[in-house]
Amino acid sequence: MKTEIIAVGSELLTPDFQDTNSLFLTAGLNSIGLDVSFKTVVGDDERDLARVLRTALGRSRLIFCMGGLGPTEDDRTREILAKTLGRKLVYHKDIHARIRERFRRRGIAMPASNLKQCYVIEGAEVLDNPNGTAPGLWLNKARCKVALLPGPPREIRPMFENQVLPRLAALGRGLMVRRVMRLTGLGESAMETLMKPVYASVPPGVTVTTLASPGDLSIRLTYKGAGPRAAAEALLDGLERTIGNALAPWIYSREGDTLETVVGALLKENGKTIACAESCTGGLIGHRLTGVPGSSAYFLESAVVYSNRAKTRRLGVPGTLLTRCGAVSAAAARAMAIGIRKTSGADLGLAVTGVAGPDGGTARKPVGLVYIALAHAQGVAVHRNLFFGGRAQVKFQSSQKALDVVRKSLTKRSKKVL
Amino acid sequence: MKTEIIAVGSELLTPDFQDTNSLFLTAGLNSIGLDVSFKTVVGDDERDLARVLRTALGRSRLIFCMGGLGPTEDDRTREILAKTLGRKLVYHKDIHARIRERFRRRGIAMPASNLKQCYVIEGAEVLDNPNGTAPGLWLNKARCKVALLPGPPREIRPMFENQVLPRLAALGRGLMVRRVMRLTGLGESAMETLMKPVYASVPPGVTVTTLASPGDLSIRLTYKGAGPRAAAEALLDGLERTIGNALAPWIYSREGDTLETVVGALLKENGKTIACAESCTGGLIGHRLTGVPGSSAYFLESAVVYSNRAKTRRLGVPGTLLTRCGAVSAAAARAMAIGIRKTSGADLGLAVTGVAGPDGGTARKPVGLVYIALAHAQGVAVHRNLFFGGRAQVKFQSSQKALDVVRKSLTKRSKKVL
Repeated sequence: MKTEIIAVGSELLTPDFQDTNSLFLTAGLNSIGLDVSFKTVVGDDERDLARVLRTALGRSRLIFCMGGLGPTEDDRTREILAKTLGRKLVYHKDIHARIRERFRRRGIAMPASNLKQCYVIEGAEVLDNPNGTAPGLWLNKARCKVALLPGPPREIRPMFENQVLPRLAALGRGLMVRRVMRLTGLGESAMETLMKPVYASVPPGVTVTTLASPGDLSIRLTYKGAGPRAAAEALLDGLERTIGNALAPWIYSREGDTLETVVGALLKENGKTIACAESCTGGLIGHRLTGVPGSSAYFLESAVVYSNRAKTRRLGVPGTLLTRCGAVSAAAARAMAIGIRKTSGADLGLAVTGVAGPDGGTARKPVGLVYIALAHAQGVAVHRNLFFGGRAQVKFQSSQKALDVVRKSLTKRSKKVL
Repeated sequence: MKTEIIAVGSELLTPDFQDTNSLFLTAGLNSIGLDVSFKTVVGDDERDLARVLRTALGRSRLIFCMGGLGPTEDDRTREILAKTLGRKLVYHKDIHARIRERFRRRGIAMPASNLKQCYVIEGAEVLDNPNGTAPGLWLNKARCKVALLPGPPREIRPMFENQVLPRLAALGRGLMVRRVMRLTGLGESAMETLMKPVYASVPPGVTVTTLASPGDLSIRLTYKGAGPRAAAEALLDGLERTIGNALAPWIYSREGDTLETVVGALLKENGKTIACAESCTGGLIGHRLTGVPGSSAYFLESAVVYSNRAKTRRLGVPGTLLTRCGAVSAAAARAMAIGIRKTSGADLGLAVTGVAGPDGGTARKPVGLVYIALAHAQGVAVHRNLFFGGRAQVKFQSSQKALDVVRKSLTKRSKKVL
């Protein structure tokens, strides 16, 4: 049973807008075992929308069409769908009364432009809209089911949850269970090579997909088939173990968490505090760590020491060291990590210094060269990295590697337990 | 000439991922007068993708298909397009050599999985990919032109700009000119009210659209029609002046720049340096300011003083003040701004302290309460704010308001010049 989501609205075809409703719909559909096969965005143009609707009716059994039910001139989805289906629009007295009442409560007379919202496609069930004027519609066409839904999130969300999902639950067969494993520290090709033997052992009903961006990878396991849920979970557990055996050092989460969430939980669990000294990341590590609610329990501070003067004054990095080795050097990273640990009183001192680009690179110190140091009670470890990409990518990869260094330092001890 | 963008990847059909490449492509297409009529998202499934490609070939003249060119098992766009077109894949020695060399430079042997990237659809031109292994393809099919592009943003963006846009420029008819004005500090409804009279004076051929998110608004002016470009620009200039008269205090850019870019340029122009003391923003202001290339010319440092101890030790905020007034108070913000200015030696000291939530709010100090202070040679100004939304929204709005306070302080003097 192919499922398709159609978002209608010319603004969704500009560089500034994105259809986010479909993400919400997808989550709901997945929860009852339904996959989405196609998503289409189309403007308010009559011919284009009619074409898209015909295509959908030809290839999908479940169609969710949203947007274009409002009162303005360019809201014509209802009319165009009726035409495409060869059905009439029928005036509904009850809807008219409801819309009029809605305006009356706000002390306004119902504008004439809202009148078209009182028309329903012949044979359709009406989906009430307690949060707006446009009712939704639910109809059958041959073997297809079509839901016509309003565009505003505060209208479509409750309508979908309270009126569409229950109707779908009756149709939904089977079960969908998803797992997301997240990794960092290896490239896409390297991951593929390690995954090769895993692919051969994927059980039927399960699909494995991977996604890579600089500094972050994910592996998604999806089971689709019959229940019971416990059997599906066991199947995924087994596959997850196989992947874990092949890729353990790089996996930071098996629950789809962000790296900062994982590091935060480890710090909390270990009763450790952290402070950072950031140069090229410019505050990104602090921003990411403090993006996690409750981070004040373990995050003390970050010294974003961009200038050399700040490195010296805030962290006690000797000016002579900076002159001799440069601000981007293993020695500077080490001194920054020791300095932030000492001056902050944190258990862990994390330091990053590098060349983020696009300017400032030299033959010996190219753009992307980043030193990361972690100081703890036992000493300091310094890591040299060469990252590729633009300024934003170098900053992100640096923050990712730095957080991963912390993660690894905190999981070393727990390894014995596993 | 209908234009269609197809994004390929099963992850784009999950609730977690969104196709953002199409926004970038749309901006580029618009700039040469091309509108997008359809956007489709489809998974890695062979039948589904083949179907989508056939539909596109039937309704569009320009097709941009992106994603699925990588080395992994599920990357099969190249093969499926070849099959759909009824064409062969031809091995290219040059591409093989280039990919091998790319790996060699990183000290790795080329994995066998990358071999399929050396195959080109019969009759296609190769689009070089300096940022990845997968080359793009450009081909004609009857009256259609098809571009096959890699999915990763850092690969598709330069390829599209440097190799696709020039090919399209030759085809583009008509003219599209866009302006983006960016604003902060007022709500969407307030902007709409002020824009009402403006809407009445929009010249024919121009459309005005607005976009609002918490802390940031934009107004886009689009001219579409005949040339010459100078006449279109003059038309937009006039409209921009009208909008400027109605909304001047809130407009921070007329060129679509980010607020941090505008603030950076103003600091440079005025020969001023800045240092920040961040509590609830957690490093976001530093991260944003250092996201601008060349920011080391004016950004000295940011003290992310999350703990009270750090506020006292780093900035000299008296412990008694923190006990008496609390860390989230006008007095604390003022002391932090003075402290960071003094200890950093910067011309401007910017401080932010607030309750980002979701926890930690009280009746007197609710989630979203944020104090922002700016210290300069003439004194200190403190601003009290109450922001709505979740943790991420409060952090972003705080950083936005803080940067806008700096912007306003730097434009006050320049006003006399205008």
